Amino acid sequence: MRSLTCSSATWLRPPGPRLAELIPRRITDVLTRIHHVGIAVADLDESIAVYRAALGAKLLHRALNEQEGLEAAFLSTGDGEVELMRATRPESPVGKFLAKRGPGLHHVAYGVTNIAQALADARAAGLELIDSEPRMGMHGSLIAFVHPKSLGGVLTEFVET
Amino acid sequence: MRSLTCSSATWLRPPGPRLAELIPRRITDVLTRIHHVGIAVADLDESIAVYRAALGAKLLHRALNEQEGLEAAFLSTGDGEVELMRATRPESPVGKFLAKRGPGLHHVAYGVTNIAQALADARAAGLELIDSEPRMGMHGSLIAFVHPKSLGGVLTEFVET
Repeated sequence: MRSLTCSSATWLRPPGPRLAELIPRRITDVLTRIHHVGIAVADLDESIAVYRAALGAKLLHRALNEQEGLEAAFLSTGDGEVELMRATRPESPVGKFLAKRGPGLHHVAYGVTNIAQALADARAAGLELIDSEPRMGMHGSLIAFVHPKSLGGVLTEFVET
Repeated sequence: MRSLTCSSATWLRPPGPRLAELIPRRITDVLTRIHHVGIAVADLDESIAVYRAALGAKLLHRALNEQEGLEAAFLSTGDGEVELMRATRPESPVGKFLAKRGPGLHHVAYGVTNIAQALADARAAGLELIDSEPRMGMHGSLIAFVHPKSLGGVLTEFVET
């Protein structure tokens, strides 16, 4: 990650005494909240029942994504969501994650007011994008993923809200 | 997790046709949002710089917790936070996490209106608590952790807001 600390974005302004002054102001207004966390699970029905019974999360919807080899359930946790995901085949991304790391936190998604701007800012700061353009997600919102190697091992998603 | 799907909490009401009717209504109103995600990092300064430059996150505060062997930085991501954590010694919980899994997502924290109620609900649903009573967290808020083995490998925190 060392190369990212002096990104091209920060070079657009002349050097000053404080790093904060080097960060383009426009990117500070895009994030709205933590939209959801994605959690890889072994048994989707069981996990939904636990989140409902123990945390009072409410099931919003459930969808199969055969292309990505996953079934997901979205549950509200107040003004935020948990996305529980099971693999529909072992060689899918979630299947590989489960095989390698076991069930657990898989990704974090930030709500953004302008996903094109969020991606442009991320690219300007040197992050590697999985999705160079926004695409339609299972929420019915535009989404895009940043590669985990750009953010210290954290698979990161933007969701336009 | 199988034993949790029919928790003692759900047994308080007579069986009905839909599982939703078995879930005590009181627990559905405690969660407010995803308060923060905790991320274990190898280099705290570098990670802070990346989150600021690439996502526009704002550094709120930074604190050393020698007892738990970690230094944490809290950054706002809109109405939510990222807690970046480095280990101050290899045998601390974050140090062991980094040694075992490498940098990445460490825990998720839900904002709750009443942490005592959230803990009571979690306990009634059969979850194992790390903190049986709320304690003061680095945010200056009451916090409590649920054991990851109770929630499919996800270390889960409640923060009273």
